[in-house]
Amino acid sequence: TINAERLWDTLTETAAIGATPDGGIARLTLSDEDRRVRDWLRAQVEALGCTLTVDAVGNMFALRPGRNPDLKPIALGSHLDTQPTGGKFDGVLGVLAALEVLRTLDGAGFVTEAPLLLVNWTNEEGARFAPAMLGSGVYAGIYAGDWAEARQDSAGTSFGAALDAIGYRGAAPAGSVPFGAMFELHIEQGPILEAEGAAIGVVQGVQGMRWFEVTLEGQSAHTGSTPMPMRRNALLGAARLVEAVDAAAQAHAPDAVATVGHLTVTPNSNNVIPGHVFLTVDLRHPQDAVLDALEAALRDALDRVTVGLSLTGKLQVIARTAPVAFDPDCIASVRRAAEKGGHPTRDMVSGAGHDAAHVAGLVPTTMVFVPSAAGLSHNPAESTAPSECAAGAQVLLDAVLDYDSR
Amino acid sequence: TINAERLWDTLTETAAIGATPDGGIARLTLSDEDRRVRDWLRAQVEALGCTLTVDAVGNMFALRPGRNPDLKPIALGSHLDTQPTGGKFDGVLGVLAALEVLRTLDGAGFVTEAPLLLVNWTNEEGARFAPAMLGSGVYAGIYAGDWAEARQDSAGTSFGAALDAIGYRGAAPAGSVPFGAMFELHIEQGPILEAEGAAIGVVQGVQGMRWFEVTLEGQSAHTGSTPMPMRRNALLGAARLVEAVDAAAQAHAPDAVATVGHLTVTPNSNNVIPGHVFLTVDLRHPQDAVLDALEAALRDALDRVTVGLSLTGKLQVIARTAPVAFDPDCIASVRRAAEKGGHPTRDMVSGAGHDAAHVAGLVPTTMVFVPSAAGLSHNPAESTAPSECAAGAQVLLDAVLDYDSR
Ligand SMILES: NC(=O)NCCC(=O)O
Ligand SMILES: NC(=O)NCCC(=O)O
Repeated sequence: TINAERLWDTLTETAAIGATPDGGIARLTLSDEDRRVRDWLRAQVEALGCTLTVDAVGNMFALRPGRNPDLKPIALGSHLDTQPTGGKFDGVLGVLAALEVLRTLDGAGFVTEAPLLLVNWTNEEGARFAPAMLGSGVYAGIYAGDWAEARQDSAGTSFGAALDAIGYRGAAPAGSVPFGAMFELHIEQGPILEAEGAAIGVVQGVQGMRWFEVTLEGQSAHTGSTPMPMRRNALLGAARLVEAVDAAAQAHAPDAVATVGHLTVTPNSNNVIPGHVFLTVDLRHPQDAVLDALEAALRDALDRVTVGLSLTGKLQVIARTAPVAFDPDCIASVRRAAEKGGHPTRDMVSGAGHDAAHVAGLVPTTMVFVPSAAGLSHNPAESTAPSECAAGAQVLLDAVLDYDSR
Repeated sequence: TINAERLWDTLTETAAIGATPDGGIARLTLSDEDRRVRDWLRAQVEALGCTLTVDAVGNMFALRPGRNPDLKPIALGSHLDTQPTGGKFDGVLGVLAALEVLRTLDGAGFVTEAPLLLVNWTNEEGARFAPAMLGSGVYAGIYAGDWAEARQDSAGTSFGAALDAIGYRGAAPAGSVPFGAMFELHIEQGPILEAEGAAIGVVQGVQGMRWFEVTLEGQSAHTGSTPMPMRRNALLGAARLVEAVDAAAQAHAPDAVATVGHLTVTPNSNNVIPGHVFLTVDLRHPQDAVLDALEAALRDALDRVTVGLSLTGKLQVIARTAPVAFDPDCIASVRRAAEKGGHPTRDMVSGAGHDAAHVAGLVPTTMVFVPSAAGLSHNPAESTAPSECAAGAQVLLDAVLDYDSR
């Protein structure tokens, strides 16, 4: 049995690293806060006698030996980076619950058949360096390491330079640390479990996701002396794209979601017609065909806007993740673990992207969800109760043991 | 006769202070670049034997004595600050042409009846500290000095602190430096003079202008796991306001102009539904009644958007300048000066705001316009030919002498 209090204490202890006044965490990937929480994690796993390997994109792997050295490790973990205005549970819970699993086994002197591998993936959030799930994406061969290295944050710092700056560019080639299955515990980040009174989400897969970077170029000019018909207003074009992206999702209700989350205006001065806008588009749906329709709607809108307002537009795909179905055996282990604990469960597809979605293309994988109060995530007010976190960690432990004993 | 080459040389010389690679100037008010160009101006006017007074908001006044000490000075000048992506002529031409007028009179040993007063107004652009024309606005009693002091730039620095930082908080109370009339030379910043082949714009007045700061507050949440009906997307609301502001101007064609020039999204992360947007609105028209209609359309749109999207909205008026008619005697002096030079003229109302619009409420005032290539301004590509600048400076000199000899 996991120690609920110890788990909650580690959540509280690490939440101080990058804590914000509103009760959230700002711990952008590869920032100094990220370095501090990584150093902390390293110390914890080394205290348990685990061997830590860091790979070329900063993914951290802590190995706890099993009884049978011929078996590939069972991985468990998530990510410790957060959004700029993130909460205390997104990702963090999955890593700290994995640590709690190792500590519990250690305390009980229990040795699994297969080795266990605690994982902390680099840049899951994609908030500093787009796209999201970059560390697991390089691990899984979805993104080239060189391409990842060169991704830049808004200050122009590259992913590679940031890795070096915090000293977490490891010697192991990305993808070289093997494992045979993965279980990731995560908060739901949506409203369903709470609404239905279920304690455990048995996750069947992850919806598909496409990310785009769009630039609109018009002409900066004076707001007072430039007649309306002479204008080439990039922000007016951006406004129409924001509206069109929202409308595209509404047209594919109820499952489609589509959002412009980032938008930057240049020169951004009260009395200058905006000459340049950069924005990002996030489209998601559980079916590839609907993702195609959403993408077509975006491209159509961009054409309409650029022609109608005499702008030039550029659209670049920066992430394209197909819908993923998780492994039936892994799912069955989670279901048995939840039943053993007497928890009401709900089968569900993840709305958020996860490292598990990349890993699922390589090895049997699944996830365990616990409720998010009011469905709120990527927000400092993100909340999951101590008992709910504990239930999730216990199911994680029991699912891993169930899978290990096949 | 003014020295056209000397005028162009000073334009080139000062354009180096804050020069940008694209041929423009970035010399935000009260920045270190602004300090350097102010120091340069101080040296030039002191070399001419003028007495420099700096007032409490940094406005610079250089007095050249006249023959009759009982007459109030005739002011001439403009501003040396620029937009973040500004050109080489907006404001700068008016100050350097005034300097050229003083140098020409000095070279000719000519003493006017009234003293002359070269003026460099602080923060005409309003790009770092909104609103525009803040220095002349405090001079004219439109804005309280305390209110101006407390205005903040996007980094949170106050106008007062920035004044102190560059050492241009003067001892003279704002409004205490008297003058009896003002002539301001400026580029048109619009397309009319060029289109009609006129060299000199005889400016009849300035259209009215209202500025607003709007905040929209929704709820930051996850883009992947938050269903469309649960969203409170502040950027979607902002997009609708941008569209409504544009539509309001179109509804009052051809004279109305309306723009959102500044828009900032928080947290501005690809996979976070924007919880907060700050934006500014700039509405202009030559008639107060139409400005009322534009403002009503903005307020209606804000109500519609906040109700429709479950956002909270806040709207604050930060500038409200009534349409201004310039002084008939000053206008007549400009017209005679242009005729003397044989320049084709065009009567016009200024689309851009100017310090002269504030000053016109106190003393007889007018402006002289010269063409802007392609009507382009608030853009590094802003362009006025050397001969056009020289024509403007000569008309400025002759108009001031005409007015002085009434
Ligand atoms: N779980 C999570 O928030 N991942 C970030 C990537 C995404 O946007 O879904
Ligand atoms: N002339 C000029 O560009 N003034 C700035 C204030 C404004 O009109 O926006």
